[in-house]
Amino acid sequence: MAARESIGIGLMGLGVIGGGVARVLKEKPDSLAREAGSQLVLKKILEKDLAKHGSMGIERHTFTTRFEELVNHPDVDVVVELIGGEYPAFEYIREALTRGKHVVTANKEVMSKHWKELLSVAQEYQVSLRCEASVGGGIPLVSPFQEDLVANDISAIYGILNGTTNYILTRMAKEGLDFSVALKKAQELGYAEADPSKDIEGIDAAYKLAILATIAFGTEVRPEDVYHEGISRLQGCDFRYAGELGYAIKLLAIAKLSGDSIEARVHPVFIPEDSLLAKVDGVYNAIHVEGDLVGRVVFYGEGAGPRATSSAVISDIIKIVQDINNGVSSPLRLPFATGGVLSRCLK
Amino acid sequence: MAARESIGIGLMGLGVIGGGVARVLKEKPDSLAREAGSQLVLKKILEKDLAKHGSMGIERHTFTTRFEELVNHPDVDVVVELIGGEYPAFEYIREALTRGKHVVTANKEVMSKHWKELLSVAQEYQVSLRCEASVGGGIPLVSPFQEDLVANDISAIYGILNGTTNYILTRMAKEGLDFSVALKKAQELGYAEADPSKDIEGIDAAYKLAILATIAFGTEVRPEDVYHEGISRLQGCDFRYAGELGYAIKLLAIAKLSGDSIEARVHPVFIPEDSLLAKVDGVYNAIHVEGDLVGRVVFYGEGAGPRATSSAVISDIIKIVQDINNGVSSPLRLPFATGGVLSRCLK
Repeated sequence: MAARESIGIGLMGLGVIGGGVARVLKEKPDSLAREAGSQLVLKKILEKDLAKHGSMGIERHTFTTRFEELVNHPDVDVVVELIGGEYPAFEYIREALTRGKHVVTANKEVMSKHWKELLSVAQEYQVSLRCEASVGGGIPLVSPFQEDLVANDISAIYGILNGTTNYILTRMAKEGLDFSVALKKAQELGYAEADPSKDIEGIDAAYKLAILATIAFGTEVRPEDVYHEGISRLQGCDFRYAGELGYAIKLLAIAKLSGDSIEARVHPVFIPEDSLLAKVDGVYNAIHVEGDLVGRVVFYGEGAGPRATSSAVISDIIKIVQDINNGVSSPLRLPFATGGVLSRCLK
Repeated sequence: MAARESIGIGLMGLGVIGGGVARVLKEKPDSLAREAGSQLVLKKILEKDLAKHGSMGIERHTFTTRFEELVNHPDVDVVVELIGGEYPAFEYIREALTRGKHVVTANKEVMSKHWKELLSVAQEYQVSLRCEASVGGGIPLVSPFQEDLVANDISAIYGILNGTTNYILTRMAKEGLDFSVALKKAQELGYAEADPSKDIEGIDAAYKLAILATIAFGTEVRPEDVYHEGISRLQGCDFRYAGELGYAIKLLAIAKLSGDSIEARVHPVFIPEDSLLAKVDGVYNAIHVEGDLVGRVVFYGEGAGPRATSSAVISDIIKIVQDINNGVSSPLRLPFATGGVLSRCLK
């Protein structure tokens, strides 16, 4: 089967992450085409702020404010959703799949809450749905869990999955700052949003843990199954006491097999200072996995930011293009299909 | 396309690693079949020591001492090479590919020296050749480099790729042991071979670095292009001096872009004590990668041992079976095809 000369991309959302992806597509078209087997061409961008086309150096006619125009464009093969938030992103992804478009998304909220429905739509319409960027930014996680560690029975995941809170905790630990001061610094640097509640309350980490645990344990773990407690009640003295006892304080996302159930929770944890996770500072993420064959594996890297996230989004696009050129559709496999043994989640 | 009910495996070599893979195939046939879409059935084992069938609980007629019998068996779809060493493993792999068998190997020496020829044979005969287990044991590395980080231009790799030397260095650093004493301890525990020269002279790490660098930089890096210096001249006092200055000593495998060339070398290095690689103790491996998009990513885990290696070997088998069931052949992509820019290796 001959490779297609070009593959059309419809990009939804030209914010920090969407802008990063658009920039990388413009920056290195030849090396991406060599890897994908086809040129990756940005055909349509869905964005409210039409003025962005000038600053991005993208032609005006590529922009639209209407979802219908993007999803109905005959040359759009792959829809990349980088709007964020639950709605309308969920409806847009669902609709794109039913129109026979492959979808790549970085949306942890949509994927953790609507994974089951979206995957069954993707299977029905024989298209791919990929979400590597939804957990751990540029760190390969979804794909290692689904493919490279697939021979393992996973018994536990311990992750630093939220860069904002890890940045705040690092400054509290190293400089003795109070929570509110460290939060303010994070906001000034763009590491925390104006309304930081989803990050600091552990909700963002709970979404990501739900996705990883669902894949790793082969059974559905919903965000509401994950107990979460944030970092806003921590005080400077907690770090002093921890340090005296040889511990660091980290916001860990933990999912563990416990009998025939899964225990899934996000909360601040004392961890031994000499463990690898204790050394993960600033906006970095790290995920420690335990498998019956592989033993202990740790993945570490930038958990957010436009460049790192682009790395994951574009590798997802390239996998889809390779599948198109090979004549295969391989939607994200349904992790639920392998479940059944683990019947419920413990809070 | 309907999935095949079963896929036949021909296993070459029933040593420590081969025995581990055979054990895992027997241990969890149902969960592996669920992931692969077909039963994985051990059809033939090539092994000189026929007495092993008893201890492994495998039927006598599965064993053969003749390569021809394994490779000609009509029910063998995938040949798994775990003999090790350059010859006859290389000829066996080559021959199996020309008979239309897919091949999975953990052989770093064969893959680093004969990669180009074997891949072109695999492409000619439209079969897969996979080698995840050849570098980093159970840590996903080959597949992340080939797939998940593919949008990146990689600028550097720093790896602890040899568990034997890292174990020796850890004991020298922590207990002040002399090299010869630490080596002896490693041999007693089975972490070092009777003839440890390939490990302690950095040759094993050079093979692995050649494989990773070839994939990461998209140009051929041969083992003889890699400068290597081992650890046998290190003394207890080196670790004391390093410690006083805030450094650890590790045997690092380093590949870096340097203008339009690649610098590739293995030698003992002073690294800052608070870096992640400095915290990698005992038989563990870790690989630090730098990419233009992803920034810094680190992969950590067990770099050897029968269970961890089985994790990688079996995930390679499962990917091949999924491809068979999807009607695709996707041989390991030719990293050389994307090269051309980087014309030579600097020593």
